[in-house]
Amino acid sequence: MAKELTSRSENYSQWYNDLVVKADLADNSAVRGCMVIKPYGYAIWEKMQAELDRMFKETGHVNAYFPLFIPKSFFSKEAAHVEGFAKECAVVTHYRLKNDPDGKGIIVDPEAKLEEELIVRPTSETIIWNTYKNWIQSYRDLPILCNQWANVVRWEMRTRLFLRTTEFLWQEGHTAHATRQEALEETEKMINVYADFAENFMAVPVIKGAKSENERFAGALETYTIEALMQDGKALQSGTSHFLGQNFAKAFDVRFATRDGKEDYVWATSWGVSTRLMGALIMAHSDDNGLVLPPKLAPFQVVIVPIYRENGQLAAIDQKAKEIITQLKARGISVKYDNQDTKKPGWKFAEYELKGVPVRIAIGPRDLENGTAEIARRDTLEKAVVSLENMDQYVADLLDDIQQNIYKKAFDFRTANTTKVESYDEFKEVLQTKGGFILAHWDGTAETEQKIKDETKATIRCIPFEGEKEEGKCIYSGNPSTQRVIFALAY
Amino acid sequence: MAKELTSRSENYSQWYNDLVVKADLADNSAVRGCMVIKPYGYAIWEKMQAELDRMFKETGHVNAYFPLFIPKSFFSKEAAHVEGFAKECAVVTHYRLKNDPDGKGIIVDPEAKLEEELIVRPTSETIIWNTYKNWIQSYRDLPILCNQWANVVRWEMRTRLFLRTTEFLWQEGHTAHATRQEALEETEKMINVYADFAENFMAVPVIKGAKSENERFAGALETYTIEALMQDGKALQSGTSHFLGQNFAKAFDVRFATRDGKEDYVWATSWGVSTRLMGALIMAHSDDNGLVLPPKLAPFQVVIVPIYRENGQLAAIDQKAKEIITQLKARGISVKYDNQDTKKPGWKFAEYELKGVPVRIAIGPRDLENGTAEIARRDTLEKAVVSLENMDQYVADLLDDIQQNIYKKAFDFRTANTTKVESYDEFKEVLQTKGGFILAHWDGTAETEQKIKDETKATIRCIPFEGEKEEGKCIYSGNPSTQRVIFALAY
Repeated sequence: MAKELTSRSENYSQWYNDLVVKADLADNSAVRGCMVIKPYGYAIWEKMQAELDRMFKETGHVNAYFPLFIPKSFFSKEAAHVEGFAKECAVVTHYRLKNDPDGKGIIVDPEAKLEEELIVRPTSETIIWNTYKNWIQSYRDLPILCNQWANVVRWEMRTRLFLRTTEFLWQEGHTAHATRQEALEETEKMINVYADFAENFMAVPVIKGAKSENERFAGALETYTIEALMQDGKALQSGTSHFLGQNFAKAFDVRFATRDGKEDYVWATSWGVSTRLMGALIMAHSDDNGLVLPPKLAPFQVVIVPIYRENGQLAAIDQKAKEIITQLKARGISVKYDNQDTKKPGWKFAEYELKGVPVRIAIGPRDLENGTAEIARRDTLEKAVVSLENMDQYVADLLDDIQQNIYKKAFDFRTANTTKVESYDEFKEVLQTKGGFILAHWDGTAETEQKIKDETKATIRCIPFEGEKEEGKCIYSGNPSTQRVIFALAY
Repeated sequence: MAKELTSRSENYSQWYNDLVVKADLADNSAVRGCMVIKPYGYAIWEKMQAELDRMFKETGHVNAYFPLFIPKSFFSKEAAHVEGFAKECAVVTHYRLKNDPDGKGIIVDPEAKLEEELIVRPTSETIIWNTYKNWIQSYRDLPILCNQWANVVRWEMRTRLFLRTTEFLWQEGHTAHATRQEALEETEKMINVYADFAENFMAVPVIKGAKSENERFAGALETYTIEALMQDGKALQSGTSHFLGQNFAKAFDVRFATRDGKEDYVWATSWGVSTRLMGALIMAHSDDNGLVLPPKLAPFQVVIVPIYRENGQLAAIDQKAKEIITQLKARGISVKYDNQDTKKPGWKFAEYELKGVPVRIAIGPRDLENGTAEIARRDTLEKAVVSLENMDQYVADLLDDIQQNIYKKAFDFRTANTTKVESYDEFKEVLQTKGGFILAHWDGTAETEQKIKDETKATIRCIPFEGEKEEGKCIYSGNPSTQRVIFALAY
C-alpha cells in the first residue's frame, strides 16, 4: 500500500500531516505557510459553508463583502486591538512591477510606492466599522447583521495545514446594535449556532464557555468560545464569538440617534469560524486507516465498488449498481460508483477508507446470484452481507447510525479524558501523563493564569457556561474560587 | 423623493453610479478603488454564483482553493504572460508591523522584509500550474477540471463600481488535458456555459466569438468571449474562456506520460467571470426609476405592501398577506412582506422600484372587501387588479413573462443598435452618432486593428462564431476579408 499512514501512537503529529496530504485534502504550496485546498478537502469545506450559511440566514443574517486591504492607520484607532492583535501581517507597499532594466525578469517599481501602506486583512473589524459609520444614523438603521465569507492573512511563523496557515478561509460576522443587551444576546446566540453545528454536523462535542481576560480577542469585552478535545488530549478552539462593547464604535466614531432622541455609540459583536474546523474534523474522528467523515459532511456518503474477473460480469454489476444508485439518490444520499478498470478492488477499498467515505458497498457475481451486497461501515470497519431489497432503507439507517456513533465515540473519549483535580501537583501529574481537559479551581486572576501557563504550557480554555457552581480553592494560589475552569494544552 | 437618480439621457455614467449606490448594491470604500458590496448587491451575486456553480459541476468541474499570494519570480516564467499582462499589481514586501518608537501608532518593521516579494494574485495561472506539476504524472491523472471562487487584485488607475475595481470577486477555471483537441473543446464548452447563463438567467443577450490577437489574454493561443451591448451603445466583455495551449505547462515544466508511453506537455484552458457581471446586469435592463432585475436573479421576486389607515385594518391585511405568502412560497417564489410602520406606502413603492423587485403586490381594505390585490410589474410599470383566487398562478406566470420580456427588450435594443457598414467613413459616422455593435470587414491584421483603435477608440469585440461567412474588403485597408467582425466602443 503506497499510501500508508504513520500511526497515531507512533507520531500523532506526523499521522495528521500524512493524512491531510494522502487523503487529498490539502497540500503545502510554493508560498510559505499558504496551503492549496484540494478538491476533496474543498468539497468538505463547501458542505460546512452551506450548513453554516443556512444557519446564519435562519438567524437573520445577510452576507456582504468588504475590502481585502486595510489602511495601516486604521489599526491604530482601537487601542486594545492594535496592542493585543498579532502584528504579523502581510504589508502591501507598492502597486506596480516593471521589467528589470538588466533584462532579467521583473522587479518592483520603486516609483510605485504607496503613500500609506495597506495591510492584508487579518480580521475586518476596523474596515467594517469604518464603513458602518456611513450606514448608521438612527436606531432605525439597527441592528445590522452582516456576515462575510473571506480569506484572511496572519503571518504565522509555525504553520500546519488547516490548523494554522498564513492564509486561511473563514467567515466573520460583524453586527451592530442599539443596546448592550441586544449585542450580548447576539454574542451568545452565535456561540450556540457554532456549538449546534459542531455537534450535529461535525459530530464533535464541544464545551461552551467564556475566555479569561488573557485569552480574549483584542478589543473584546467578552469572548465566548467552543472548545473541542482532540485524540492526542489537546484542546482545539473551534469558534469564537466576541462582545465588543462600544470599543470599535468609539474608535471609528459610530454614533446613532436613540429611540428617545439622545445620542449613543453603537454596540458591536463579531464572530468567526475558519478552515481550522477542517483540522478539528480530521483529528476528532480519524484513525490509522485514514479519515472518518460524519455522513452529514462527506462529499459522497456511499461508494459502490464492483468486484469482477471478466467484463461480462461487470456489465451485470453495472446494471444492478445503477438501480441501487437511483434508490439511494431518491433518498437524498450521495453516491459515487467507481467502476474504473485501471485499479483493483483492494486498492479502491484502501483508497475510500483513507478518504473516510462513510459506507462502502461491494457487489460481486455471487452477490448478484444471491441478491445481496457487502456493506462496510467506515467508522467501525464492520461488514455485513445485506439483501438488495430495501438496501436503501438499510443504508439510510446506517448513515444515521454512523453520524450518531462517531459523535458518541468522541463524547465518550472526552468524558474519559476530562479530569477533576484538587491540587497543583495533581494538575501537573494529569497534564503530563494523561492530558485532556482538566477541571480545576482558579482564583480568577491573570497573574495566576500566566504563571500556570509559564510553568506548564497549559492555558484556560474556557470558563464553562454549564456545570455546577462550586466553591473551592485555586490550585495555584489557594485563594477562593466559585467555579472550576477548563485547563488544557491547546493547538 | 430623497433617492432620485440622474436620468440616463442627462448623464448615463452618473445614472449608473447613482443607481449602484442608491439601490444599496455597492459603495466605495476607504481603500482606493476597492468596493464594499452591500447585502442587497451581494444577494444578487450569491444567486449568480449558485447558478454558475451548479452549471460548472454539471459539466464535471470541482472547486478547489489556491493561495492569494504568488512569488514574483513566477510571473517571469511565461514570456507572453509577463509581457502582456498588466503589471499594476499589489506587492507585499513586508510581513510585520511594530509600534512606532515615537509612540504614534504603528509602522512597518523594516527588519521584516521578505526575501522575495509576493504579488496579490491578479489571476492564478502561474501558481496553479506550479501546483499541477505535482498532481500530474500520467494521462491517468488527466483531465483536471478545477474551478476556484476567489478575490483578485489589479491596480486599476480609473475605477468604477463593479465594472473596474482594484479588488474584485470572480471564479477562475483552470483545466489540464492530455490533448489539444480536448482542451479546445473545454474552451468552447465553457464559453457556451457563460452564454447560457447570461441569456437564460441574466436575460442579457450576448454574442459569442473569438478575440483578435491584440485582445487575447496574455499567454493564450485563443480567447473566446461573450460580448453584451449596454444601453449607452457600448460593449461590455462579460466572460472569457482561454485556450492556453502548452504555454503554461512548458513554463512550469508540467509533462505527463501519454497513453502510448511517450511524454508530452499538458494542454491547458482557463476561463472566468467576475463581479463585472453585476455591472452588465444593472446596465442592460435598468431605467430612470432604478434597477430592473430578472426574476431568476432577484434576491426576492415579490414584495407585498399593505395599504392602511388604522391598525385594525393592518391586522386583517397581515392575515391575507400570510395566506398569499404561503401560496407563493409553495411555488418556490421568494417574497418579502414589508409591513414596517415607519414608512409610508409611497416611500415603499419608490424604494422597491429603485431596487428592481420584479413584482409588487399592494393590498388595501377595499381589496380585502373585493377579494383582490393590485399587482405591478417592474419592467413595464403596468398595474392590474387581480383576484386573490389563483393569484399564485398569476404571479408565477407574470415572473416568467418578465424574465422573457426583459430579455426580448435587450435583444431588440441590440438588433436596433447593430449596424453593417461598408466603408471607414460610414464606420466613423455610425460610431459617433449611434454607437452600438458595428459589423465590418477587417483584413485580419493587428496593424489595421491598432490604427482603427488609435483613430476612433473602437476595438474589435470579437470575430463572431455565428453569422454568415461573407467575402468583402477591409473598411480600412481595402484588403480582402472573409467575415465581418464586431467593432464597438467598450467598457
